[in-house]
Amino acid sequence: MKDLTRMLNPRSVAIIGASRDPEKVGHIILQNYINAGYSGRLYPVNKNADTVMGLQSYSSISKIKDSIDLAVIAVPAQIVPSVLEECGKAGVKSTVVVSGGFAEVGNKELQDQLAEIATKYNMPTLGPNCLGVMDPRSRIDTLFLPTYKLSRPQIGGVSFMAQSGAVGSTILDMISGEGFGLSKFISYGNAAHVNEIDILNYLMNDKDTNVIVAYIEGISDGKGFIDIAKKVTKIKPVVVLKAGRTSAGIEAAHSHTATLAGDYETHEALFRQFGFTIANDISELLYYAKILDSEPEPSGNRIAIVTNGGGAGVLTADAISLSPNLKLAKLGNQTINKLKKSMPPLVNLRNPLDLAGDADDKRYGSALAAISEDENIDMVIVIVLFQTPGADSKVASQLIRMKESIKKPMIVISIGTSYTQMHKIMMESAGLPVYDSPTAAASSLEALLKYHMYKRKIVSLV
Amino acid sequence: MKDLTRMLNPRSVAIIGASRDPEKVGHIILQNYINAGYSGRLYPVNKNADTVMGLQSYSSISKIKDSIDLAVIAVPAQIVPSVLEECGKAGVKSTVVVSGGFAEVGNKELQDQLAEIATKYNMPTLGPNCLGVMDPRSRIDTLFLPTYKLSRPQIGGVSFMAQSGAVGSTILDMISGEGFGLSKFISYGNAAHVNEIDILNYLMNDKDTNVIVAYIEGISDGKGFIDIAKKVTKIKPVVVLKAGRTSAGIEAAHSHTATLAGDYETHEALFRQFGFTIANDISELLYYAKILDSEPEPSGNRIAIVTNGGGAGVLTADAISLSPNLKLAKLGNQTINKLKKSMPPLVNLRNPLDLAGDADDKRYGSALAAISEDENIDMVIVIVLFQTPGADSKVASQLIRMKESIKKPMIVISIGTSYTQMHKIMMESAGLPVYDSPTAAASSLEALLKYHMYKRKIVSLV
Repeated sequence: MKDLTRMLNPRSVAIIGASRDPEKVGHIILQNYINAGYSGRLYPVNKNADTVMGLQSYSSISKIKDSIDLAVIAVPAQIVPSVLEECGKAGVKSTVVVSGGFAEVGNKELQDQLAEIATKYNMPTLGPNCLGVMDPRSRIDTLFLPTYKLSRPQIGGVSFMAQSGAVGSTILDMISGEGFGLSKFISYGNAAHVNEIDILNYLMNDKDTNVIVAYIEGISDGKGFIDIAKKVTKIKPVVVLKAGRTSAGIEAAHSHTATLAGDYETHEALFRQFGFTIANDISELLYYAKILDSEPEPSGNRIAIVTNGGGAGVLTADAISLSPNLKLAKLGNQTINKLKKSMPPLVNLRNPLDLAGDADDKRYGSALAAISEDENIDMVIVIVLFQTPGADSKVASQLIRMKESIKKPMIVISIGTSYTQMHKIMMESAGLPVYDSPTAAASSLEALLKYHMYKRKIVSLV
Repeated sequence: MKDLTRMLNPRSVAIIGASRDPEKVGHIILQNYINAGYSGRLYPVNKNADTVMGLQSYSSISKIKDSIDLAVIAVPAQIVPSVLEECGKAGVKSTVVVSGGFAEVGNKELQDQLAEIATKYNMPTLGPNCLGVMDPRSRIDTLFLPTYKLSRPQIGGVSFMAQSGAVGSTILDMISGEGFGLSKFISYGNAAHVNEIDILNYLMNDKDTNVIVAYIEGISDGKGFIDIAKKVTKIKPVVVLKAGRTSAGIEAAHSHTATLAGDYETHEALFRQFGFTIANDISELLYYAKILDSEPEPSGNRIAIVTNGGGAGVLTADAISLSPNLKLAKLGNQTINKLKKSMPPLVNLRNPLDLAGDADDKRYGSALAAISEDENIDMVIVIVLFQTPGADSKVASQLIRMKESIKKPMIVISIGTSYTQMHKIMMESAGLPVYDSPTAAASSLEALLKYHMYKRKIVSLV
């Protein structure tokens, strides 16, 4: 297993191909390191310049006197092997090859050469044809995409590994728009040396990672993958989106990262067997990541719905009932008695509990206080339609307050544009997952329940 | 069939219950009429004030000398019948009862009274327990929700009917965030008098409506519904979201609008038989509405994918292959020859066509020019990941330009936050539907194809 510690937490970084030309990949990477506030030692390597962006530049890696933990390589494919060889000789601890032009365009030999050199020097090498790594804690950022195009997420507990650079950057951008944050981002491209097994192993042991999210096109070493798959979900959840589910997708994947995507049924069976959370789309990756990151283990599968919109309550009751393992809770008598005292007479004391369109922070507070103590309820969905007369920032604050005292999984559904989005960000930043549809909310609670059902079963077997 | 022409396009409006108190529903409705720039004659009715918001106020509808096309009634439930009776006597052409407190809270008798009066005077009456109507063309807006909470959509071709006020307002807010616009919004609540059949009939004949979108909890008159359902989809598409798909949902719906939601299988079979486009969630309503509004009839089911991200191409190829009626197109030889001349050597000339991360407006333009003329291709998905180095506003402009000349359905997938959102709005405002996931794009093309397959079959049978 290749150790990625120095790659993700380097004390010194060399950028080979660092350029003065702002259009060049090597320039953007150096710029992003400087912007991110990387506090380690930074060395541009450029044959044709003495300084790049104010930093002293070196004509080759061998000229740097310091010990280098990570070399980021952004040079044309044909000279990557010789650069990698120099890195090995210079004792570089790890490398990231962002350059493309290897197996994905038929240059399998060049890629094999790269893997051989990395193996010879026992130098963990990521890529080629990848975006590299990002860690907002250690402030490393090898991504060659400017921040105005791709917003960088805040620090958090979700780590994300992606074979595809473009899908990876898209998801990273999406995460930055959510309230939850990122632990590590690892884009591994053609996986010539470091592969998904090494990455899973690293993230499994990373204390800053609560949830692993993976976009995978193919698995190169089936046996090795099964070994790590058995271990990782006992420790933390893994959400996986597997591309190449159909023969057309498999062909496309082969042309993309030269991956043999393999039979999806086999992969899916394997993912299920080992308790992976399967996403069918990029949006589902995000839905499941945030609930698994923030919510505790549920005590069961009975859901209470509190809403200020009757129709949204109906749609959510439908979505819960259509979920394989979820059901609507029956409110306990004590809860009904408490609600009788605090709710206006027009509120029907049933589940979904429709607080009506004039529900304000106090009504939400009383309803949630009653529900949170009910032993017949395992998880809570709170629907706040911010278009209605009673809903405002006080309601959002109330939910954030209640969230701190309620020990059950609790998520929010809010649907709408600007006024709603403002409150969504407010709640998500406080660790309260917000969903934009009843089906997304239901499938996320289902994912949370299923992961913990798996974990409980596995632990009891051990 | 009740004629809704005067309700949706009134030359004069009375607001009964217009209040000076800015918290009151009657105040917000009057305010919204003024804000919307309604150019007809506007009459506040208020027992206790001589003027409201600068307009002369009347103590009762009978005191107004003018002929009133629409009376909006926002008074307590108990006095609605007497107010409605006065409207009937005064010759009011139609009314909207926004007040709640009828069958949805057990006051079935009060609701029956309301229906009797409306019938007696042959006065189309919407509601009770509803948000009423909105039409950005005639600038009517009976919604009692302020615009800072619920943004109002621009003028367009999608009409939306909703039984639930809160779901209705949520969807209206969502539409305002999209590039496509609204023709009519009709929230009909308990449907005591005007029901879904009257509304479908009106919208079917409305020349400003291209697509009807419906949120329905229950159908009160099955036979009448079948009669209109047979006719409407021959003329224009209807997208329907039916709440109460499960027994839990049906119970919740009954407590919400006193609706007997009925058996979903029966409803679904009926919707399918008559070529309705079935949505399973609010987001799907919007997805299908915009493609049916803007895109032409496809010549077949063969899809070409053009992308600047390989992984997104793989995921989209999967989504197309998993769709029941869609398949990936095989590029024609002529197309391949044209692409050979215009694409850089690293681009694999296959479908999905991966233009690579440095694809700019020119490369997209050449690719789409070649594809648009290929007879082996019926519909086009263009994926633009705006995080990648080559993608910028010039690419968005290029797609808008190409859209004008390509006669085939063409949609875009773009996923991301601020930089992406900016371009999404730019493209949607130009009539180019943008989707935020491969599955949403595929299911929308499927919906477009299925509607036209239905229509072609029906027309050929006539």
